[in-house]
Amino acid sequence: MTRHIERQVELLKEKILRLGTLVEEAISKSITALINRDTHLAQRVMASDEEIDRMEVEVEEECLKMLALYQPVAADLRFVVAALKINNDLERMGDLAKNIAKRVSQLSTGEPCELPPEIRTMAMQAQEMVKQCLDAVVNSDPSLARQVREEDDAVDKARQEIRRTILQGIRAHPEKLENLLRINSVSKHIERIADMATNIAEDVIYMVEGDIVRHRSGD
Amino acid sequence: MTRHIERQVELLKEKILRLGTLVEEAISKSITALINRDTHLAQRVMASDEEIDRMEVEVEEECLKMLALYQPVAADLRFVVAALKINNDLERMGDLAKNIAKRVSQLSTGEPCELPPEIRTMAMQAQEMVKQCLDAVVNSDPSLARQVREEDDAVDKARQEIRRTILQGIRAHPEKLENLLRINSVSKHIERIADMATNIAEDVIYMVEGDIVRHRSGD
Repeated sequence: MTRHIERQVELLKEKILRLGTLVEEAISKSITALINRDTHLAQRVMASDEEIDRMEVEVEEECLKMLALYQPVAADLRFVVAALKINNDLERMGDLAKNIAKRVSQLSTGEPCELPPEIRTMAMQAQEMVKQCLDAVVNSDPSLARQVREEDDAVDKARQEIRRTILQGIRAHPEKLENLLRINSVSKHIERIADMATNIAEDVIYMVEGDIVRHRSGD
Repeated sequence: MTRHIERQVELLKEKILRLGTLVEEAISKSITALINRDTHLAQRVMASDEEIDRMEVEVEEECLKMLALYQPVAADLRFVVAALKINNDLERMGDLAKNIAKRVSQLSTGEPCELPPEIRTMAMQAQEMVKQCLDAVVNSDPSLARQVREEDDAVDKARQEIRRTILQGIRAHPEKLENLLRINSVSKHIERIADMATNIAEDVIYMVEGDIVRHRSGD
């Protein structure tokens, strides 16, 4: 029985990582589509969200099956509960990538305008956080998870910076209002992707150490 | 044992409802603060978020304890898993109420501007959805839950309407840009509160019928 559940835990981890890889790709493609104004790529990101949704339901069903059949305790139980939450956050990240892709499609219709340069840096930081939080899941690494939590501040600051740049842009070029607001939405979505990576990092800490650290800044 | 778990399920339900009531109050106060430009009330909403965060952690610990100690199966297991997710969505609703309250505080600093009338209607619809989804949880009522899912479309449409009104407002009164964008954020937050109510409704359907209906529109 014990060995059987170990095997199930490994299989569940693999499934989550497959989902994580899909989500990472969707985010990365949505950012590439933004930078290159590539509406075809944006369309593909939007279409790929269905696959992400399907996998999320599959992972959840797997978690429920494990709870029902193996009645895990201690570390295994924490893993399954963390998996339920990580799964949910990954799906939300996928939605955010889809939202970015939607804005990229809309951007092609309005007055052309430059991206604030900070948005690329911010997107890279957020993507790095997503990569690291997934690594923290695979390696059950709470110190990497703590690092992800710390990185979130930089992304929040970048977002405020971009917000100011966009307000200035609207004042200087009111004819670009719609597209500047779309870019503002994109930066908001990137900020939320980083928030989801932070959530996942906090779930890894809980999974390994059994401690619920969210809502605690000093940890 | 069986009777013991029934009692635990009841206690957990009560706890979730206490949290739900706190969240409902935070939302309702944030909207009142918005309509009356009441920054004091907005401050109180922001302060009350700590209590919501604390209760969320408590409910989650309770769920984990139930899984570990009673190893529930079938309907009880589905209830505990749904409770974990509902708890998470309630906390996110609390965050959204806090975000609305933050915007209300900021609104007092910029150029005064009228609220689009649709925002009150939209806020009322969203609050009704929150009330109904909590009723659906208490009464394990999947048909009420299905009604909540259907209502979400009206809120999404109202949000698009408000977005258009705000764009027109910015074009007509560029000096009100900052505050109009804050009102835009508020309407976005209200839309997301309705989304969370929809999530909770979908968890009730899962809890009662064992069927995962999210990502399915035709249900």
